[in-house]
Amino acid sequence: MTTTTATSTAARRSTELEKLIPLRPADFRVLTGDRPTGPLHLGHYFGTLHNRVRLQHLGVEVLLIIADYQVLTDRDVAERLGEHVENLVLDYLAAGIDPQRATIFTHSAVAALNQLLLPFLSLVSVPELGRNPTVKDEINHSRQSAVSGLMFTYPAHQAADILFCKANLVPVGQDQLPHLELTRTIARRFNERYGRLLPEPDALLSPAPLLLGTDGAKMSKSRGNAITLSASADETARLIRGAKTDSQRHISYDPQSRPEVSSLVLLAALCTGRDPHEVAQGIGSGGAAALKRTVTEAVNEHLAPMRARRASFARDRGYLRRILRDGNERANAIAETTLAEVRSAMGTRY
Amino acid sequence: MTTTTATSTAARRSTELEKLIPLRPADFRVLTGDRPTGPLHLGHYFGTLHNRVRLQHLGVEVLLIIADYQVLTDRDVAERLGEHVENLVLDYLAAGIDPQRATIFTHSAVAALNQLLLPFLSLVSVPELGRNPTVKDEINHSRQSAVSGLMFTYPAHQAADILFCKANLVPVGQDQLPHLELTRTIARRFNERYGRLLPEPDALLSPAPLLLGTDGAKMSKSRGNAITLSASADETARLIRGAKTDSQRHISYDPQSRPEVSSLVLLAALCTGRDPHEVAQGIGSGGAAALKRTVTEAVNEHLAPMRARRASFARDRGYLRRILRDGNERANAIAETTLAEVRSAMGTRY
Repeated sequence: MTTTTATSTAARRSTELEKLIPLRPADFRVLTGDRPTGPLHLGHYFGTLHNRVRLQHLGVEVLLIIADYQVLTDRDVAERLGEHVENLVLDYLAAGIDPQRATIFTHSAVAALNQLLLPFLSLVSVPELGRNPTVKDEINHSRQSAVSGLMFTYPAHQAADILFCKANLVPVGQDQLPHLELTRTIARRFNERYGRLLPEPDALLSPAPLLLGTDGAKMSKSRGNAITLSASADETARLIRGAKTDSQRHISYDPQSRPEVSSLVLLAALCTGRDPHEVAQGIGSGGAAALKRTVTEAVNEHLAPMRARRASFARDRGYLRRILRDGNERANAIAETTLAEVRSAMGTRY
Repeated sequence: MTTTTATSTAARRSTELEKLIPLRPADFRVLTGDRPTGPLHLGHYFGTLHNRVRLQHLGVEVLLIIADYQVLTDRDVAERLGEHVENLVLDYLAAGIDPQRATIFTHSAVAALNQLLLPFLSLVSVPELGRNPTVKDEINHSRQSAVSGLMFTYPAHQAADILFCKANLVPVGQDQLPHLELTRTIARRFNERYGRLLPEPDALLSPAPLLLGTDGAKMSKSRGNAITLSASADETARLIRGAKTDSQRHISYDPQSRPEVSSLVLLAALCTGRDPHEVAQGIGSGGAAALKRTVTEAVNEHLAPMRARRASFARDRGYLRRILRDGNERANAIAETTLAEVRSAMGTRY
């Protein structure tokens, strides 16, 4: 199957899924997550996080993996891991993830999940691992001198993340489709060899809006051009004030020819739930200053309830640790059940 | 470091170790094991098994891993796994392994051991994995069309086998030295990055005697040319009667020019603890028939106590399962302790 076919199949499926999810939320289990490498920003929020909250509100079960081992795929040592993990939990809670309904857990705490990597590695060939475009892409951006074994095998580890809980729905961007295709291949081969046990998960294609950083480049925590969910109202205002625009006084929404201005317009539109063209019209000839005022107000208003939740949760570190402990416990219970089934299917229970 | 240097260093170390072990047996912990792909034969026995029993008798702690996942490195599906695992336990007990002193366990039952594969994969590069000569060799003999991810990463998994229990002594053949070198590299890098925790295990180089199969080719269960530890006295006699020899009536020990005859002479010598030249002289001009009678008698006498032990253990399958359950429990306790230390060192306990 070529990538093009995989893409269009997944895209069609996603449209159908979008209609099905509100009707039968209990039929779906979602696995998604993040690497604990730093605070989440508005790009993450409008790209994936608010979609997770939406799914949760629809009544879909959501599992959120904090992929701590995967931090090591593109660097030698993971720094300030405890801090990043705690802040990630805070970001989730701030965004509206309800720990009573969602399961938040870390890779390193769920041995039975990690064990699945072994049988799964037997189901994929080295050429299949090597030709994964996401791996290729991440290799190009890696800070390591040579590709590590962890980077090379991480699509198979991701299959373990998804399949340990038999998730059947995985929110992805277009670029991650080949990844999910490998998970589907692993599930299919496992079922063919050992009997039907694992679902072939569907992609929930969420088109991420193209939000640029304040310098006009891709929004990224390492460039310092990102508005993080944990930024204060003042920091946010300062960041937007310093954002790159262009010399035209009239504000319009035209991502092709005016990427920086359009990204700011889009941000205000996303925060207020309006159409970006309408937002641009509203500013008209107010110029960059008016645009930035509008964006600052929209972002700060949108983030205000999140900031309030964040501040309240941040006061109780014990509560955060309890959420993680409970999530890890629940993930372990799920993983041990699946691993027992996998071992039975493979004949490795003696 | 070139392979030659690695080899001679390890060889020198092994000689020194051989002197140290009887003096300070409690200083050593040995990890070794087998893939459950079929019954063990005399090649295995004189190659490794009797050495394990020797170490056990010296008072060294021995852990024996039954590498059930690794069966899948060179084939798609593991067949009759339960039967092979049970027979492997029986072969160990028959050979003299004492389950009260040794720990016999299976890969698939020790999740915390398997989890170590993830941090360890972050410590080795894809080129390092790819240039492992044992992997290259096994790829050439593989029954799979393409190398699987499990085959490619198995030296790192083997490092997890050795390091989960902090084994510091690993009995290997010359050809497996590059493997052990990778384990040492992984331990060293882990200690450099996260603080001193893992031992760099030494190789115990045991020169395996070159025992040919009854057809003159390498002894191998799949060729049907091997005398298994579970063969009866009659089967053994029949196999040796059919063994390939040559047309010279005078029996001599000359592995270079008379490989088949010499292998039979060597087998009798190993079973009786005599020098092979002496054995050959004793037969003199008796020809192949006399040689085969001598070998049959020597092998059957040597195997008799093993057969008796085997028969007695085989009657109690519940006992075999108990040995494995106890071994798995003990291996899990060790693995969970090491994993907790590894997680602390890496900062992945929250």
